Amino acid sequence: MTERRGRFISLEGGEGAGKSTLLAGLRTHIVGQGIELVQTREPGGTPVGEAVRAIVLDPRERGVAAETELLLMFASRAQLVREVIAPALAAGRWVLCDRYVDASYAYQGGGRGQPFARIAELERWACAGLVPDLTLLLDLPVAMGRTRAAGRGEADRIETEADAFFERVRESYRARAAAEPARFRLIDAGQPPQAVLSAAIAALAPLFADNAA
Amino acid sequence: MTERRGRFISLEGGEGAGKSTLLAGLRTHIVGQGIELVQTREPGGTPVGEAVRAIVLDPRERGVAAETELLLMFASRAQLVREVIAPALAAGRWVLCDRYVDASYAYQGGGRGQPFARIAELERWACAGLVPDLTLLLDLPVAMGRTRAAGRGEADRIETEADAFFERVRESYRARAAAEPARFRLIDAGQPPQAVLSAAIAALAPLFADNAA
Repeated sequence: MTERRGRFISLEGGEGAGKSTLLAGLRTHIVGQGIELVQTREPGGTPVGEAVRAIVLDPRERGVAAETELLLMFASRAQLVREVIAPALAAGRWVLCDRYVDASYAYQGGGRGQPFARIAELERWACAGLVPDLTLLLDLPVAMGRTRAAGRGEADRIETEADAFFERVRESYRARAAAEPARFRLIDAGQPPQAVLSAAIAALAPLFADNAA
Repeated sequence: MTERRGRFISLEGGEGAGKSTLLAGLRTHIVGQGIELVQTREPGGTPVGEAVRAIVLDPRERGVAAETELLLMFASRAQLVREVIAPALAAGRWVLCDRYVDASYAYQGGGRGQPFARIAELERWACAGLVPDLTLLLDLPVAMGRTRAAGRGEADRIETEADAFFERVRESYRARAAAEPARFRLIDAGQPPQAVLSAAIAALAPLFADNAA
């Protein structure tokens, strides 16, 4: 008998890319296959992580150093991996995570200029070796994403950054997707939501096939 | 003209070692020399750091992973260094800090078993090269410290650890003091408070001499 474990799917993307809409659609699809799904998010997903999220996204906290932000994101992640993701996968559940470690390469690396080697070293011990089976990247031109996001409530601390910041975030995401084509699936988030969901469901198909094997 | 900067003093020690009493006495002594002093603490000392402190010391948070705790301590420290300590020293003020990076080697390293090399790597980039000019270590047998601390209010999350944890903390502190005798001054915290203060004041004397030079 092969050892069986759940699948780990992360969803990445910039502002206004439609992550929330896609998460809801994916959840319905996966649960509809009779699979037990744990949906979570970063930063957050645990009591400690949600407290960290409140600090790091607080729009009143203008002076958070880039190093501090990087350490807080990995603190939330280290806890989420150990308290939620690893136990769920070990129990055979699937995990759908709204952002994971690629977000640190994109935001704290590309966006804030923290060295990628520093982030890789943190990933090495903070993530306990947990790499997603599939990472869906919702890709969208920055201007389009910001227009979409503008209709929402108060922007969080990171959402108040300038366009150049989000251009660097997008380029870092795209570079990671290009470097790891087997894990990433880049989806054009400029399509209608139903087309985005269809593309995501198509990307998931091999995971279901493996799961049934 | 020599470039002048303030002096950086950290105070370390386990539970019930008398840090608070000594801090008050040192503050009076230093300010009495006409020196502008910034007193701060770890974790904490900044809005972000105090929010981190609330998370990491919350006695209800039983499941905080060792990796999470290490990352949170360094997040608080990275912010404190950049927002408080470095600007104060650059302005010629002295800084008296209730715990600094040696506490991570002692508590997260010795106490929790996080590798010292991991902590050293975090120190390398999170602390921006800031090493105290003097570190006072209040050393006390664990049993004596716990008896003293028992009279206080509710214990925080770390204070609820077992004696073996605090023995490892103490040994790690002593090992660091032995490895860096020029920076550390180990003080027998079993002496009466006035003798402890006198020993600390004697240890500070060379800093005043340098400052006046």
